[in-house]
Amino acid sequence: MTLVEEIYAANAAYVNHRPKGQLPLPPARKVAIVTCMDARILPASAFGLQEGDAHVIRNAGGRTSEALRSLVISQQLLGTETIIVAQHTDCGMLTFQNKDIHAVIHKNLHGADATHIDFLPFSNLEQNVRDDVAFLRNHELIPKSIDIYGYVYDVATGRLVPVNSE
Amino acid sequence: MTLVEEIYAANAAYVNHRPKGQLPLPPARKVAIVTCMDARILPASAFGLQEGDAHVIRNAGGRTSEALRSLVISQQLLGTETIIVAQHTDCGMLTFQNKDIHAVIHKNLHGADATHIDFLPFSNLEQNVRDDVAFLRNHELIPKSIDIYGYVYDVATGRLVPVNSE
Repeated sequence: MTLVEEIYAANAAYVNHRPKGQLPLPPARKVAIVTCMDARILPASAFGLQEGDAHVIRNAGGRTSEALRSLVISQQLLGTETIIVAQHTDCGMLTFQNKDIHAVIHKNLHGADATHIDFLPFSNLEQNVRDDVAFLRNHELIPKSIDIYGYVYDVATGRLVPVNSE
Repeated sequence: MTLVEEIYAANAAYVNHRPKGQLPLPPARKVAIVTCMDARILPASAFGLQEGDAHVIRNAGGRTSEALRSLVISQQLLGTETIIVAQHTDCGMLTFQNKDIHAVIHKNLHGADATHIDFLPFSNLEQNVRDDVAFLRNHELIPKSIDIYGYVYDVATGRLVPVNSE
């Protein structure tokens, strides 16, 4: 089977055993989770989420600056009150700097210039969690009433480890 | 239990029954999925993904313009060759315009001005899937060799329905 055929087969099986009917749009547990796109993270399994429970926002690194638009919609239109930021060990974002990916793009994509794009790499995982939580705590579009928690997710064990603010 | 205690308890259970050891960083199935943050979508269950299979990028609406940074990293540094764009029925992004959320923010957040932010709402789901796929197909940072598929995910049934390009 091709990749797409495999996904259709898995989807057809899911349709038959999932909960029946349409759940409400606002997340039942009033939480938004920001995490990395990393293939080894299955947020529903790792954090115990069912259909309808939580917004899940994912991008390379689980960076909160890029998640801001989604978080504001989540809070202002759909009533979430907690943010969980979970970045992870062995993250690809720890392995390069902007100049490296700019050079890869120039080489692989026929001289394309991506030097105007900040790919948001970082060099210290725990400090980056603190910085990304602080970005939200200090942002005028995130109400002070929102609870924000920072974690490191260990991709070797699956364990969520809290990162204390400083 | 508080929300955070519930998540810890679920995580502790996951740690005990998940696959042991650390999987490779590059996605085994060489695919990146772009979908919405919507709480009713569980991509791993709905699309048949195991730990290590696929990058999953999620934001409000599953918009591909905001996913571009992550997709370039996914392809250029981590070897993915297929993109699946899955936007969904009953999406919150179909229910407002920028002026509406700008007014909500101004009212709820003590006069805060977010008029410089495009919250990327849309009014026609299937056309938006086509437009978001076309954005990637026409982008100089996405190689022509990448396979890109567009879908509507029906949140009432869990079914993935292909959207034909035009």
